[in-house]
Amino acid sequence: MNLPTGQHDAAVGRSLGDVNTPALLIDAEGLERNIKTMAAITANAPGRLRPHCKTHKSIRIARTQIEAGAQGVCCAKLSEAAAIASGGVDDILITTPIVDRTKLEQLAALARVSKIAVVFDDASSLSGLAAAAEKAQRAIEVMIEVDVGQGRCGVPPGTAALKLVEELRGFPALRFRGLHGYQGKLQMVAKYEERRRGVRQALDLLLETAEHIRRAGHSLKILTGGGSGTVAIDIACGSLTEYQPGSYVFMDANYRKIEWDELGNPPPFTNTLTVMGSIVSRPSKDRAVIDVGWKSASCDSGPPVPVDDTLTFDFAGDEHGIVKRRDGASLDLNLGSQLNLIPSHCDTTVNLFDTAHVIRAGRVEAIWAIDGRGCSR
Amino acid sequence: MNLPTGQHDAAVGRSLGDVNTPALLIDAEGLERNIKTMAAITANAPGRLRPHCKTHKSIRIARTQIEAGAQGVCCAKLSEAAAIASGGVDDILITTPIVDRTKLEQLAALARVSKIAVVFDDASSLSGLAAAAEKAQRAIEVMIEVDVGQGRCGVPPGTAALKLVEELRGFPALRFRGLHGYQGKLQMVAKYEERRRGVRQALDLLLETAEHIRRAGHSLKILTGGGSGTVAIDIACGSLTEYQPGSYVFMDANYRKIEWDELGNPPPFTNTLTVMGSIVSRPSKDRAVIDVGWKSASCDSGPPVPVDDTLTFDFAGDEHGIVKRRDGASLDLNLGSQLNLIPSHCDTTVNLFDTAHVIRAGRVEAIWAIDGRGCSR
Repeated sequence: MNLPTGQHDAAVGRSLGDVNTPALLIDAEGLERNIKTMAAITANAPGRLRPHCKTHKSIRIARTQIEAGAQGVCCAKLSEAAAIASGGVDDILITTPIVDRTKLEQLAALARVSKIAVVFDDASSLSGLAAAAEKAQRAIEVMIEVDVGQGRCGVPPGTAALKLVEELRGFPALRFRGLHGYQGKLQMVAKYEERRRGVRQALDLLLETAEHIRRAGHSLKILTGGGSGTVAIDIACGSLTEYQPGSYVFMDANYRKIEWDELGNPPPFTNTLTVMGSIVSRPSKDRAVIDVGWKSASCDSGPPVPVDDTLTFDFAGDEHGIVKRRDGASLDLNLGSQLNLIPSHCDTTVNLFDTAHVIRAGRVEAIWAIDGRGCSR
Repeated sequence: MNLPTGQHDAAVGRSLGDVNTPALLIDAEGLERNIKTMAAITANAPGRLRPHCKTHKSIRIARTQIEAGAQGVCCAKLSEAAAIASGGVDDILITTPIVDRTKLEQLAALARVSKIAVVFDDASSLSGLAAAAEKAQRAIEVMIEVDVGQGRCGVPPGTAALKLVEELRGFPALRFRGLHGYQGKLQMVAKYEERRRGVRQALDLLLETAEHIRRAGHSLKILTGGGSGTVAIDIACGSLTEYQPGSYVFMDANYRKIEWDELGNPPPFTNTLTVMGSIVSRPSKDRAVIDVGWKSASCDSGPPVPVDDTLTFDFAGDEHGIVKRRDGASLDLNLGSQLNLIPSHCDTTVNLFDTAHVIRAGRVEAIWAIDGRGCSR
């Protein structure tokens, strides 16, 4: 039987009205502009751009970022890296430690075909990583993860990283490259000055750790970290040699709220990602039900926000949301009316969809696979 | 290139230790027991069992439910129904209104190969549904959705449904079957007596609406609704002719908390679904980082809960969680240690995974596709 599963219905060349909902829409022009803007921002920076694929999980977008000047990409997980590498992307930093046997076997397979760097924070994981590199017959680059305030993975700043560098001597298949310090919690700090202070503090911890290592006579080339919210500050501080912004390609309702600079300007990136839904029920004058719920828009950072800011959206289960007018008045929405919502968190919303509809001038230009969807391993 | 994407790595026949994480695990014996238990509970009930596939999105499980006595299934969306129907499941009630042109075309295709019933709550959608039935050359059954307290889709109880029945006369391709009234908000009401009162109230509204229709001389065979939390009460009340429980196959951390009966007993279904993660970092004695975040466990109903109840889990981003001991003491977890988490909400967690590992006696018996993953259209 060849039934329509709803995820693969081709709508290329057709107008938005023909797109089956809920659909993940990418504004093609806006995406290109965001990629160019970040390339311009980082072009003369002290560090290089290594955008994070965890946001888009798309080979197409990763390749466009590299064509625009990025030196390589980051992936959150090994399987995400494998998905992106399968599209020919050749320089990937995996930003979560790889420790278990199954993944180490897969890492060896991946390192054979792509230049891979991994973060680590524990000496006990080195023998496995070295064995993977030997199996791949290719050096694997390693970065020490330093906890610069995220409270997640990483050794504390200071001398602990130096000990790991010394442990590395026993594993010639591993090539020590530098330190990874991601200040995730700072990305969304709305006030510029508060975010700037936080970044300065985090980078000082990273620099201090690097100094310990250098003073002990070790070479250390890379300080990698940062994100879309802090990239301008990361550049101004001058410490990082690599910037890892992800969300700038799409932005989201929360990212757009931050003050980009001391003047309080919004970020120079626009929202290019929406979830388009359709009204499926009009039970009362002031209430419409849309076909978007928890299964097509993530809620970890709050509900998505209607592009039409006279409207509000609330989740009403797995597959439904309630749309109302902000002023409580009667709604002018018919059954079948389409409505666009800006995700509250682009990364986790993208991960709900197998494909995205790429829109230009009101038409579907292409349907792109979310190549790394579900690749959390 | 044939790289490991991490979603399709075969581990059939191997032990749990070989399963790549994060993985969705189904306890085979527990699942079979839950399906049998629900079949037994509903065997002598006044109504029939029509379990909801929105929970498992799995052809295999739908077929097992039917083999155990279910008369058919429910699906939340048309594309979910198409995915389940592609496995030969032939009697499906779609519990969200279908109103837009694209879906009506797909409904015609689906109705050609499977017996389909749909809910509706608006006279304006009837011409489209009738056209789909004509195109399919097969009657489509319709149920009127009544809002019995959910505040989502549906006409208000009372006379509004009668008007819709009268509108239906103009569409001979549509076969009126009855009323759909889902009391979703009641499913999780923890206190038995409070839940029982709520169900009684909701069912009275549904019955009253049915009476209006019958008194006007119309035949009405089906009153469909209910869920895993209310099924025993639904049966005792005697009004429904169909029960739509979904979650009982897996249960979740929240469902397990409800009082099943007036004695305060737990539900007769066990947790059979877990997300298994691995420890990827041990940054301090009291804290471990696990490779499970928002991309592999849903958060709409809170964080997942470790099976080992001496431990706590908190989300720490898309791909990470923090595990601690409840008593604050040192953790006995090494890098690579596997840990099982019970989802807070089974439906939305299942929807994050392309496959589930089916476990029996500590071994991977099979890997099942989540056939309807992402099918929210």
